[in-house]
Order: sequence, then C-alpha cells, then structure tokens
Amino acid sequence: MTAQPFEGEFVGVNLAVVGATGAVGELIRKVLDERNFPIESIRFLASSRSAGKPVEFRGKHYEVGAIRPEAFDGVDIVLSSTPSGVSREFSPIAARAGAVVVDNSSAWRMDPDVPLVVPEVNADQLHNIRKGIVANPNCIAIPLTVALAPLHRAAGIKRVVVSTYQSSSGKGAKGLADLDAQLAALGQGKPVPAPQAHKARLAGNVLPHDWTTDPDGFTEEETKVVQETRKILGSDVPVVATCVRVPVRVSHSISVTAEFERALSVDDAKNAWLKAAGVVLPDAVPLPLDIEGRDEVFIGRVRKDPTVANGLVFWVVADNLRKGAATNAVQVAQALLAMRT
Amino acid sequence: MTAQPFEGEFVGVNLAVVGATGAVGELIRKVLDERNFPIESIRFLASSRSAGKPVEFRGKHYEVGAIRPEAFDGVDIVLSSTPSGVSREFSPIAARAGAVVVDNSSAWRMDPDVPLVVPEVNADQLHNIRKGIVANPNCIAIPLTVALAPLHRAAGIKRVVVSTYQSSSGKGAKGLADLDAQLAALGQGKPVPAPQAHKARLAGNVLPHDWTTDPDGFTEEETKVVQETRKILGSDVPVVATCVRVPVRVSHSISVTAEFERALSVDDAKNAWLKAAGVVLPDAVPLPLDIEGRDEVFIGRVRKDPTVANGLVFWVVADNLRKGAATNAVQVAQALLAMRT
Repeated sequence: MTAQPFEGEFVGVNLAVVGATGAVGELIRKVLDERNFPIESIRFLASSRSAGKPVEFRGKHYEVGAIRPEAFDGVDIVLSSTPSGVSREFSPIAARAGAVVVDNSSAWRMDPDVPLVVPEVNADQLHNIRKGIVANPNCIAIPLTVALAPLHRAAGIKRVVVSTYQSSSGKGAKGLADLDAQLAALGQGKPVPAPQAHKARLAGNVLPHDWTTDPDGFTEEETKVVQETRKILGSDVPVVATCVRVPVRVSHSISVTAEFERALSVDDAKNAWLKAAGVVLPDAVPLPLDIEGRDEVFIGRVRKDPTVANGLVFWVVADNLRKGAATNAVQVAQALLAMRT
Repeated sequence: MTAQPFEGEFVGVNLAVVGATGAVGELIRKVLDERNFPIESIRFLASSRSAGKPVEFRGKHYEVGAIRPEAFDGVDIVLSSTPSGVSREFSPIAARAGAVVVDNSSAWRMDPDVPLVVPEVNADQLHNIRKGIVANPNCIAIPLTVALAPLHRAAGIKRVVVSTYQSSSGKGAKGLADLDAQLAALGQGKPVPAPQAHKARLAGNVLPHDWTTDPDGFTEEETKVVQETRKILGSDVPVVATCVRVPVRVSHSISVTAEFERALSVDDAKNAWLKAAGVVLPDAVPLPLDIEGRDEVFIGRVRKDPTVANGLVFWVVADNLRKGAATNAVQVAQALLAMRT
C-alpha cells in the first residue's frame, strides 16, 4: 500500500459518504476524485439537519440523505465522519447491512475487534475486520506512526517524547471559524470576539488545554496519541505527549524526541524514510503553512540527540484534514479494494 | 534574592542604561521605576543613530547619549541591551571604568570568567565577577532554570527534553513589527507582506528554523538553551531542545519533560515550587497571552510521566521581555546592591 493514486482495474464499489457536509466529509469527496476511486454508485448522508442539502461530485449534483438504517442498503464501503455518538449508533447498523465502515470518529479506535489502520504502517490489520468497522486514527497518531514505523522496524523504539503544534481545524469548521473571526478582528483593530470553539482566545496565543483533561492530568488528545500510536505500531512503546493548539489554520506539526534500542544514525533514519511509503524529506524545513493541501507526511530537522545512547530529534508536519483524516480514510478504502483482487 | 520590589535603604547608584531605545531598554526603564530602584544618577546611551532622542524616566526628560568610552565615567552599574558586537567592544571599557555591566547580549554568557545569573537560582555567582561583567541569560534559559532549579535540588535532574513556543518579540521590535504587519494584512484580507525579520511568514504558521542552524543540526537558540541551562544550574545535566517560533506577540511557553535521579511526585514538585522565589502555580493553565506583563515564571499542567521511573511533564510560561530579559537584568542589579549592604 502506498500513498499513490489508485489506478487499479476494479469493478466500482457502492459507496456511502456519511457526514458528507462536514469539513472532512467535503474533503473526502475531493480526495476520492483526485485518486480516481472506482465508484459504481455513491450516496451522501448527514444528520437530518443537513439532509436535503445539495453536494457536487465529479460534476454531478446529489442531494444529501438523512442517516437512517435503510440508507445503507446495498452499500459496500462507508466513509464516515460523524461525532462519536452517531458512529456508535449507525456504524454497527451499516456493518450488519454488509458494508465495511471506515470511521473517522474516536468511537471504535481502541476496540480490540476494530483495526486502527494507517495503510503505510499496518494495512495487514485489514485482514482482521471482525465488526465490519475499520477505525481511522487521530490526526497526530497518523503522521506520528508514519514517521516512527520505519525507525521502529530499523532500531526498535525505546521511548518517544512528543510536543505538538496543532492547527485550529483540528476542531473542525467551528474551530476554524473561531480563529478566523479572532484574526479578522485583530487585523482590523476591533475588539477580539470571545472564543466559540477553542478553550480560550487562540489568535496570538497557544492553548495546551484545548481538550478535556483526564484525572491523570493528561488531556484526552494526549491519551489518544499515546494509545493509538501503540495500537497502530502493534507494540507497547512508551510514549509521552504534550498537545498544544496553535494559531495555524491547517496542518499539525510535531516535535519528536525518540530513543531506540539499537544504534540509528541520522543517515540511517533518512534512508529508512526514503524507502518508506507516504514520507517526504524536503530540502527546506517543512512548515505547516506550506504543507496544507499535501497528502504525505513531511519530516525535517533530523538530528542526533546527544543526551541518550541511541536518540534522534526531528520535526514532522502533515495536513490534519488530509493525511490526518480524509486522505487516510480513502487510502484505507483503496486498500480494502486492493484486497479483493 | 526574591522577585519582590526593592525596598532597601541604600544610597542610590549611578546607573547607565545602554541600548536605551530598544524594546528591552525601554522596558528596563519601566521595571527600574516599578521596583523603586534607588538611583543617584542615571544616563541613557544608544548607538549614534539613536543618540539625541528624548526618553522619559520617573517624570523627567533625558536626551540619549552615544555609546562611547567616556560615557561610562562615574557609572556604578550598566544595564546593557545591545547587539553582541557592541557589547564585545564596550562592556570591557565600561568595566575598566569601574562599573559592573549587566549584559543582555549573548556575547559573554559562556565566558568562564563571567557569571550567568538568574537571581532566584544562582545569585551566589555574583561573588565571582572577575571581568566586571554579569551576563543575563537567554529568554528560554531563564524561565526554564527558575522552574528546574527547585526540582534539581529536590531530586537531581537526570535528563530534560524541551520544546518551545516562542513569541515574535524574541526577535525584538523588528520581529514584532513583522508579525503585526502580517496579521494586519490577513485580517483585512490583503496580500500578506513578505517576512522582514522572521525566516518565513509567521502569521498562521510556526517556524522551527527561525534561528541560524549549527553544523550538528541544532539551532543557535537550542544550543544556547542547553549550554546556559547547564551553566546556571551549575551542573552538566543532559538537556535536548527543539525551539519553535509561534505567532504570539509576547511571552514564551515551554513544554518540559524531565526525568529525575530520585522519586519526585507531582505534589513534591508543587511543594518545591511553592517554596521557590519567582514561581507562580496558578489555578488555571497559564497561557502566553495572559502572562504578558508579569515578572514571574508561571507553571501549569504538572503531571507524572508514566514512561520513566521518576518523571514529570509540565508547562512553563514567562514574559520573554520581562523575566526573560529586562526584569531579570534589574533583579541582578538589585542583587548587586544587596551585596553592598
């Protein structure tokens, strides 16, 4: 499985895009088209609030239908981007109707009977679909595991410390609207409106508390990063994370400090990444503003950590809406199709 | 030495503020006044370009003089905030004229004959002024050592991993003007002007390359953080840093993951900080936007690191222009005065 566009010869599939009017749902339509995903039929579903809205796909107009049990009849693959509660209710229904659901919510990610898949890392887990559901991982866990997996294979991860620089769009369209309104007011010298989606004003600020905090002091996001990274890598590697929201619209960045069981030079790591699918090592340091719209995981500033025996420090950037969500989901669907040949 | 305003009974000192028209120089004037610093005479010096400009201090008007050798005659303490090249030339001249120079540049920080002082941490080093110069540390090293020193005393630091979220004003008035111009254009829907001070557009972006990169791949800033932290703590503790510029105007934030030789619980750490000078443990998570204008170092999100035997993860915020520069310099001058009683 690579990050390349699908160019197979499959008979098209019957597809349902659920949560079609959200930020990720819209991008899924775009990515399906970009990757020439073979489609026999496609339907778009959303909450009853959005049902009836028009959407366009490959030059044709569709009306969004409401999510209800009958809507999944005859569907092969569901690409779902809904709140967790909606997924908990409808994903099993779609699965019972015979579809495989690729689910972007966090509802099923840690279910031992649901594979959590980043195709470049663990596409083999798609042979273990026991509930008819495949979970799409967290938007930090995806690029982090794409970056870590080749190094883990080469030298065995001993411990990973990450600090993140996460964009506003990680909180969806509402997060983006919140930041945009604050930036517009600032730039026009007007009073900055109170935060609507983020936990505090994000413009001109950074927020290490933009998620619910668990009793152990870690945020839900930090716990997801740790647990999902382990599940995707298939190994209980020690990971400790600090997740921080920054005033960037799209693309998450990650400062990674990783320690390995065996020797791994900067050149060894670069060689492992050059051979890995979905990784780009650009000449210039990757910046979130430049990576918006890209499907790959970008790595830069790779250096030897002088404080441990086998350590590296590096910088990872990926578009959180694409590789962190929509692109990964479509890649999972492509991998499912590839398994049918 | 504490972070409290000076309330002693000293005879005033003859003071020179060098680099008086820069961002830090201006703030030094303000902090001297806020702390009731006892002054017999004060003069303001700057480059010949700024000489002749008017400045106000405690309601009186002064004309800025040019930095030249004779300007230091009769001065007891110099508070200097100039580029390193200027300090390399004039700080020894001022010292030979009998003054103690508290220097904000990076010119003398790693000189073994120059103490590098954060008063809350190592005011004792002021007994070792061999060149007439005291160096004011880097704006990350200051809050980092204020936060680490009490923990180092309690449990012995084994290794520290830091990732920073540094504000635009770390690049001075030019950095701030750069970010402000970009934000104004963005907010008004105009084309964003090309970067003038930062390495790339900072508005809507984060820059892990906003400093010169050394041959080992670390930036000058990261190397300063490592070397200065060790010198201030008086111990070769292993520190590895990733420094990142974020679109915040003032205040630097630091994500700290620290491992200790001996057991140190979250409560142990909080108790150590509560007894330490210059540290605030606020109820709410400290955010850079809220800490602007404050003189202390703010710590939050303290949690146990489950990936090592004795580890803590926490979040540190300080105003980089105040505690990271002007306030620390004035505190050093206060400590020098206190030694004369």
